[in-house]
Amino acid sequence: MTLLPLSLNFDPATGLIPNREASSRYLSELSGCFADEYACQTMLSRGDPLVYGVTNLDLANGEGQLHYGLGIIRPGKVGREYFMTRGHLHAWRPAAEVYICLQGQGMMILEHESDGPASLLPFSANSVVYVPGYTAHRTVNIGTQPLVYWGILSAKAGHDYEAVGRRNFSQVVVELNGQPTVLQRGEYGRMIAKGVA
Amino acid sequence: MTLLPLSLNFDPATGLIPNREASSRYLSELSGCFADEYACQTMLSRGDPLVYGVTNLDLANGEGQLHYGLGIIRPGKVGREYFMTRGHLHAWRPAAEVYICLQGQGMMILEHESDGPASLLPFSANSVVYVPGYTAHRTVNIGTQPLVYWGILSAKAGHDYEAVGRRNFSQVVVELNGQPTVLQRGEYGRMIAKGVA
Repeated sequence: MTLLPLSLNFDPATGLIPNREASSRYLSELSGCFADEYACQTMLSRGDPLVYGVTNLDLANGEGQLHYGLGIIRPGKVGREYFMTRGHLHAWRPAAEVYICLQGQGMMILEHESDGPASLLPFSANSVVYVPGYTAHRTVNIGTQPLVYWGILSAKAGHDYEAVGRRNFSQVVVELNGQPTVLQRGEYGRMIAKGVA
Repeated sequence: MTLLPLSLNFDPATGLIPNREASSRYLSELSGCFADEYACQTMLSRGDPLVYGVTNLDLANGEGQLHYGLGIIRPGKVGREYFMTRGHLHAWRPAAEVYICLQGQGMMILEHESDGPASLLPFSANSVVYVPGYTAHRTVNIGTQPLVYWGILSAKAGHDYEAVGRRNFSQVVVELNGQPTVLQRGEYGRMIAKGVA
């Protein structure tokens, strides 16, 4: 196929691309993602904050083509858990993804579809993360400014949110004693139940 | 295959990744790239400047995997022609590439393998270019600081420098009257021959 090459400007501070619409994810659309359901409902009773957005540039499909998207996660927390993406596997499981962080302080949670513990990787301004195939991945903003990043992957990859949604990730990134801290989901759940989180 | 996920820091000012070696291209290795052969030989008689470098992160091969590299082109000119990469087609011709510019002022020259005129695209800090498959591409630094950028592509893509080397690109980016200017290669050649370039 023939495709006009394309040059676009992006804003690494806002995570936006002029004249390109970002798809927005509000808290109300992220049901079940955050561990502290009470904190989530309390926030929603006051409004419906924007958690993250992605401007997807899916210009071409087919063999050898790539899709790429500019993501921006706003700073914030639900209870103690930092704002983050829903997370996904690729519908075409072998597809890897390269993530390049332009601004902010973040982490990525990576969990292989079928084995092993999660990997928690630093993902702050001027870092690059390789997400292998067969690996669920979620991006977390642990800072006080927007986390802005590119993700680039095969045009064949697609997104599977449901497989991740059914079981969520085994680990959470929460603020404890003022510091970003990684906990097992169950451990954090027990803290919430005991009223210590 | 199993592959450890990996987070690396990079320096958008120098275009380097700590503890990862960049492959360096010196002017003496770019024979035939620049149009003004006399200017090239004159520069080489005084030394052999570094023109560009790439740190390739080719962590995994196979279906769905990606390769990515951090490029840095130094500011400079050979005659009137700005420092640039050799340019390449992908060995696997359908492979596209996403280029993300982090620093500097540049342009990309894109030429379809078999038809049509070249496309000259702006490629400066905070811009992203999509290079479709079957398209030779070269990156040019038209500024006064290093041009730093990421390139991301299918692990299957490979590089074919020879096909580009045999015919070079049809257009050149040169400084005329203090401004970056795009000329047909033949036009610039005639200026050189007449001693007006």
